[in-house]
Amino acid sequence: MADNNKIYRAEVLKAFVCELFEKAGMPAEDAAWYADTIVMANLRGIDSHGVLRVPNYVDRMKCGAINVRPNIKTEQLAKAITLVDADAAAGCVGAKLAMEHAIENARSCGVGIGGVKNSNHFGAAAAYAQMAVDNDMIGIAITDVPPLITAPGAKKKLVGNNPIAVGIPTYSDHPFMLDMSLSVVAEGKLRFAAAKGEKIPFGWAADVNGNPTDDPEEALKGFLLPISGFKGLGLAYVVDILSGLLTGGVFLDKIKSMYRNPTEPGLTGHMMIAIDISAFLTKEEMQEHMKYYHEYLEAAPVVDGAFPLCFPGEIEAGTAKRRAEDGIMVPDSVIEKLMALKEEYGVNAELTSL
Amino acid sequence: MADNNKIYRAEVLKAFVCELFEKAGMPAEDAAWYADTIVMANLRGIDSHGVLRVPNYVDRMKCGAINVRPNIKTEQLAKAITLVDADAAAGCVGAKLAMEHAIENARSCGVGIGGVKNSNHFGAAAAYAQMAVDNDMIGIAITDVPPLITAPGAKKKLVGNNPIAVGIPTYSDHPFMLDMSLSVVAEGKLRFAAAKGEKIPFGWAADVNGNPTDDPEEALKGFLLPISGFKGLGLAYVVDILSGLLTGGVFLDKIKSMYRNPTEPGLTGHMMIAIDISAFLTKEEMQEHMKYYHEYLEAAPVVDGAFPLCFPGEIEAGTAKRRAEDGIMVPDSVIEKLMALKEEYGVNAELTSL
Repeated sequence: MADNNKIYRAEVLKAFVCELFEKAGMPAEDAAWYADTIVMANLRGIDSHGVLRVPNYVDRMKCGAINVRPNIKTEQLAKAITLVDADAAAGCVGAKLAMEHAIENARSCGVGIGGVKNSNHFGAAAAYAQMAVDNDMIGIAITDVPPLITAPGAKKKLVGNNPIAVGIPTYSDHPFMLDMSLSVVAEGKLRFAAAKGEKIPFGWAADVNGNPTDDPEEALKGFLLPISGFKGLGLAYVVDILSGLLTGGVFLDKIKSMYRNPTEPGLTGHMMIAIDISAFLTKEEMQEHMKYYHEYLEAAPVVDGAFPLCFPGEIEAGTAKRRAEDGIMVPDSVIEKLMALKEEYGVNAELTSL
Repeated sequence: MADNNKIYRAEVLKAFVCELFEKAGMPAEDAAWYADTIVMANLRGIDSHGVLRVPNYVDRMKCGAINVRPNIKTEQLAKAITLVDADAAAGCVGAKLAMEHAIENARSCGVGIGGVKNSNHFGAAAAYAQMAVDNDMIGIAITDVPPLITAPGAKKKLVGNNPIAVGIPTYSDHPFMLDMSLSVVAEGKLRFAAAKGEKIPFGWAADVNGNPTDDPEEALKGFLLPISGFKGLGLAYVVDILSGLLTGGVFLDKIKSMYRNPTEPGLTGHMMIAIDISAFLTKEEMQEHMKYYHEYLEAAPVVDGAFPLCFPGEIEAGTAKRRAEDGIMVPDSVIEKLMALKEEYGVNAELTSL
């Protein structure tokens, strides 16, 4: 399991991934945006959604599970609602288009929706919520993912741990950016505990018989649990229904996993919602209120040794700033896979570490 | 603490509460709707939001904290957004008006928002989501409430356990109706455990020093915890910002508690969102998909002795059906308070038990 790391500049990773995706057949603009969202996840410290995933994405392009030259159709369903049929494009391509439409719809109606069907995994949801924030709007980005969590007392992967991102402009260094999944923890945390031979807290997962477990090995054979039991489960259904069912796409177990069904499009659905701040408040009012909000949290008393409270996404924004300067640590095992792809696709960009 | 109960028909309770609120100064239509939402909570088994609260509401009407004859102003902020200034009306009055506008906006734009500022506690959120469902729409109803939960490692009531209701039409016996607050449990569960001398699970609450506790007495002096720590806390901020900050109302500790500030309007804000199903799917498609969804949950394997899974709100819908036939159990102590109000306000309706 031992793995060494080297440090790479974000620009180096982006240029490499972008050229690789282009060589795999994507139009330059799509490849650049895809690379952006992936490296942005690394910058924000969400390495699970970063360059680690590139080999899988390229495999999926190769077999057509990700359609690199999609025939995307958009339809205006109502004054404030646009539907995107992504034709199995990379998730980030349809999701970006949908948020652009949601923003446009919100500009004309105050609130706008962009739905997506027939898509693929869109990476970190914050990328799309951020697009709304960049346009002085509140952005909500949700997606369904393949079944992963069970109900308390059940023993089946029922529904995805469907992520929710909400971005709110602050007109300061960093927005309010909540980006969370609806399982207590990601599967990676079970693997991590298993590798270290540690117990996990009860409440993270159930074993294959649906019983609570603190053994990560049993948990990996079993099921992740939703946040706060039936509350988180209910929210996961809502995200699944809005993203996958309402859009005329697929939902529940009809969604394909990029790991278990590597050669098939995920058929994932997304929903993007934008709310125009200017319908309600001036920029100055919003800035002032969000400043008050932040100061209120920062001033809250905490237990000895704890950091002051801050906005969701603030730690990630700090990490991004630091990593933009200091670089991003990438395991050698990931780089080896990327080097093999460099060879295979004749990528000119070099993966030079710092 | 011993208390006896008698059983009352929903119609009896409604007629009494409606007349009482009229005698306290409310217009007949507002009083009827207020009584409806309160008794609906009892019917659905959410007795904490039922007739138990009536004496407090009447006290608040008496001192003007709830404005029985409000001068409500509505403003169309954008094609799909209406803002209601509720002038300290009973929460249910402004919230109903806002959802009516959200539905109207959704009819013209596909999605619609009705915001409310300067309101009061609106009772159970499901009542407003249900209005959208009754109009073949998805309804989302949220509200901010006074600070109640703290962050993991903090020691201050930071933000409310702000409820979220999402109603989705199924065109069957009962809609999908999620109605949840963002604390792990309601404060009532701490009182209940304390009264019975039982421990509570770690994770429900923190003591006054911000440390985890399993002692309900310490928890009552301390703080409720949000669902899944910073995830639920982040969602509580989002609800607070959408309901209270964006609407130009109040948020965080500027909201007044109906218990700690009995003579002041709560100033609570709400947000109602309606999404028109017909923009996306036919009624038949929606019905079919939701039927599939329900059957999928119902068929999921569960641990021995557990009930099959069902939709959020389905248990409450079953309770409502049963209580509509069998009546609603109300503690004598509550009835005594209502009888005192009957005397004081000269209410003619009788509180006859079954």
